[in-house]
Amino acid sequence: MNVAIVGASGAVGQEFLRVLDEQNFPIDELLLFGSKRSAGRKYTFKGKEITVKELQHNDDFKGVDIAFTSAGASTSKEFAETITKYGALMIDNSSAFRMDADVPLVVPEVNGADALNTPRNIIANPNCTTIQMVVALKPLHDLAKIRRVHVATYQAASGAGATAMDELVEQYREIGEGKQPTVEKFAYQLAYNVIPQIDVFTDNGYTKEEMKMFHETKKIMHAADLDVSAMCVRIPVMRAHSEAIWVETERPVSVDEARKAFAAAEGVVVVDNPAEKEYPMPLFVAGKDPVYVGRIRKDLTNECGLTFWVVGDQIKKGAALNAVQIAQWLLRNKK
Amino acid sequence: MNVAIVGASGAVGQEFLRVLDEQNFPIDELLLFGSKRSAGRKYTFKGKEITVKELQHNDDFKGVDIAFTSAGASTSKEFAETITKYGALMIDNSSAFRMDADVPLVVPEVNGADALNTPRNIIANPNCTTIQMVVALKPLHDLAKIRRVHVATYQAASGAGATAMDELVEQYREIGEGKQPTVEKFAYQLAYNVIPQIDVFTDNGYTKEEMKMFHETKKIMHAADLDVSAMCVRIPVMRAHSEAIWVETERPVSVDEARKAFAAAEGVVVVDNPAEKEYPMPLFVAGKDPVYVGRIRKDLTNECGLTFWVVGDQIKKGAALNAVQIAQWLLRNKK
Repeated sequence: MNVAIVGASGAVGQEFLRVLDEQNFPIDELLLFGSKRSAGRKYTFKGKEITVKELQHNDDFKGVDIAFTSAGASTSKEFAETITKYGALMIDNSSAFRMDADVPLVVPEVNGADALNTPRNIIANPNCTTIQMVVALKPLHDLAKIRRVHVATYQAASGAGATAMDELVEQYREIGEGKQPTVEKFAYQLAYNVIPQIDVFTDNGYTKEEMKMFHETKKIMHAADLDVSAMCVRIPVMRAHSEAIWVETERPVSVDEARKAFAAAEGVVVVDNPAEKEYPMPLFVAGKDPVYVGRIRKDLTNECGLTFWVVGDQIKKGAALNAVQIAQWLLRNKK
Repeated sequence: MNVAIVGASGAVGQEFLRVLDEQNFPIDELLLFGSKRSAGRKYTFKGKEITVKELQHNDDFKGVDIAFTSAGASTSKEFAETITKYGALMIDNSSAFRMDADVPLVVPEVNGADALNTPRNIIANPNCTTIQMVVALKPLHDLAKIRRVHVATYQAASGAGATAMDELVEQYREIGEGKQPTVEKFAYQLAYNVIPQIDVFTDNGYTKEEMKMFHETKKIMHAADLDVSAMCVRIPVMRAHSEAIWVETERPVSVDEARKAFAAAEGVVVVDNPAEKEYPMPLFVAGKDPVYVGRIRKDLTNECGLTFWVVGDQIKKGAALNAVQIAQWLLRNKK
């Protein structure tokens, strides 16, 4: 199988190289694409050096079977036709096509079968915060329909890319030396701070990031009535997002029932042992594949409510890994 | 007026010195008390050097009018009789007496009048996370009774004391030098991490910190039916706690109504201008007196719901300032 990575030099692009290797994805030829700026860089995959080519409107995608694209929504929109015209399946990590009716939005553990219907040869990878949440919501929703979700996020710097992670490290170094920290990648200093805004604001007072959680959850879970009110917050963590989640289900679900459903769910690992101070934390989830769930307990305000804490590596399950898992699901299930 | 500070060397004790000075609190004599370990230390107040005395079971509190105590619950319990027996009013920052029926639990903007009834000469200062939340809830509750609250916190290292703040700074220094960070004050490394546990766990899966928000809110707001489900999380911020709050009111309240009520409320400052990226952040609220409210919007899951973001300095309004404001309220209102 011939595979392409578009945006190979970015944080997610680099993660694609690692994940394809770790997962031993069946690859005959791997092609790397990037901007003019990153063209010419060389990366090693399974012992072979590969040079990044500039993404251009030409026939470079002839013969490509799957293209993992992660170079921003505008690049995805501009190059979708070029990438897919010879039959390549584009698995796109940007927000460009997520809400298009003729593009499936897929998290394999939740709605893998949606990936079979791709009239435009495009499958969209959901937003990182949505992916880890729906993986955790699915087993509960199967137990008792979820009516509403409240979620507060604790999002890592890596969500803003590799240079944002560098800036955070640099800020701590500068502060340690008594200097004014450099602020370029985020609107404000992130070191020793939190920024209650991710992406731009929409008219209803929510940010785009928050509205992605509202809209994408409905589409992935096939649940038009499931509403989500999200508060998305950037915190000074390097990698892995955390989420405090409250759900209201159509009937009361006990903590035991919920814990069993989480434990049996694909892609979920339960770490929930308060007596031993065991619960998911981003420092220890960074680089891991599954979505970790802990702090499972009843919502004290609502007989039909549950609350829990979810941590996932947003560059892995939140981006590269989920996209590769979509491809793996298709290899297993497509006739 | 003769004033004593018990626990003078701690983070909150030191803040009492600053706040009493800033507020120009009427003081004839200021006495400082501490443990055996901190006895003998000297601090300057309004140009005068004061030596910390060891807290002992003797007559040192004879002649004291108000004692601000912040040396932990066990010390407060052990010394309450010693402190109050000659008539001193003990304004206690610990959790020792908060839920006792004959001890008022007071946030002046919310229930100042409760401070008038002190059969044991003790007034309790609520937990920091509760204080900043109820200051924000009060104006909404006055508009339309609040039925339930969901709250996720983003709590600063300073909540665990001055040495915890030092440890966080030290961890970033050690990480910057490629060393393994020292972990003593918190259960896990806090630098580049979040810890979803504050205080010990109770039987229902909530921590004591989370249950304080449940119980204390009812008592302060005189609202036995107002339930709170809290998720309390320690994050690597130095000072000032942030809270993502959802409220359900008995009737729909518009964003405009809520914003006007917040803006008119005592102790609240509204910073809510998304177009200019203006919202409260802990880095900029540290050291400030008011509680800051922003990101005010409708709860997308509930016609009767609102959500907003609250930031307050937990050593100031969350501890020392609130205690001093209780004393000021009494000076203004007690016959």
